[in-house]
Amino acid sequence: MSSMEEKTIQSTPIFNGSVIRVHEDEVTLPNGKTSRRELVKHPGAVAVICVTEEGKLVLVKQYRKALEKAIAEIPAGKLEAGEEPAVCAARELEEETGIRASKMRPLGSFYTSPGFADELVYLFLAEGLSQGTVEADEDEFVERMDVTPGEAAEMVLRQEIHDAKTMYALLLWETKLRTSTT
Amino acid sequence: MSSMEEKTIQSTPIFNGSVIRVHEDEVTLPNGKTSRRELVKHPGAVAVICVTEEGKLVLVKQYRKALEKAIAEIPAGKLEAGEEPAVCAARELEEETGIRASKMRPLGSFYTSPGFADELVYLFLAEGLSQGTVEADEDEFVERMDVTPGEAAEMVLRQEIHDAKTMYALLLWETKLRTSTT
Repeated sequence: MSSMEEKTIQSTPIFNGSVIRVHEDEVTLPNGKTSRRELVKHPGAVAVICVTEEGKLVLVKQYRKALEKAIAEIPAGKLEAGEEPAVCAARELEEETGIRASKMRPLGSFYTSPGFADELVYLFLAEGLSQGTVEADEDEFVERMDVTPGEAAEMVLRQEIHDAKTMYALLLWETKLRTSTT
Repeated sequence: MSSMEEKTIQSTPIFNGSVIRVHEDEVTLPNGKTSRRELVKHPGAVAVICVTEEGKLVLVKQYRKALEKAIAEIPAGKLEAGEEPAVCAARELEEETGIRASKMRPLGSFYTSPGFADELVYLFLAEGLSQGTVEADEDEFVERMDVTPGEAAEMVLRQEIHDAKTMYALLLWETKLRTSTT
């Protein structure tokens, strides 16, 4: 492992945003040559698989400026500084869907774009559901949709569902979680 | 859908790298207020599920500067300008693993980080395998590993496999592709 390491010669800060930070690193490669890496720092995020009493998966439709279109995703959001992922997951689920969960069962984590970004997403299954209060962030406009597995599959075909975390969650729900969540 | 749109008031270029471009947009929200979005443009990428005659999944271990560690992923790579995803997939598979595929079966696509980036990954299943030539890019150091489903599952637990596309691919292989690829 260590023989593959790319040592930083110099790191040049490029952008210090309110969400992401960008820097360009000059690195030494394992063969002694140098190269450049363009890198994005991200605070990390959570995403939640939430299945209603009716056996439907809760999605939120939201405009994604990066894509210049709206897509439907599982409820998700960025970690605030020092926030526990499970706490963030419960907060985001209630803010975006009005569903309160008494427990967040961890289903692992994944890096979304290891080629250029360190964004890590923690995935949870919401358990112990009750009615809470929708209270989206003031710059966030989301529309809740509860879908059956068949409806979700059609949304994937129409690319209304089109992001990695939601497609991974769908596959997990269809193949491994269904018996335990319905 | 259109009511959710965030219209661009002004787009400020921040970084024009060799891989990513970064800009910050001032937008009008659906309620008429304004906000800022920090956005990353990416050329897009491909990823390949490749299963050997022995029924093992082909992975490549590689140092990811963004994470400051090496992880194992399915073979993948960035699209070159104007390159067809299937052509890119065959090129990257052979460069990184020495495996030539006569056919790339499309398995859909997904955005990796829709909250801030437009990276779209096209996933393929490699078919018609034969021996080719390893020829990694000069700044790319990769180590091929062929793994069983059990080994892959353990690598997920140890977080040696830890990225969304590979975990999605694993789940797809375990649950939907196994009968057709062995």
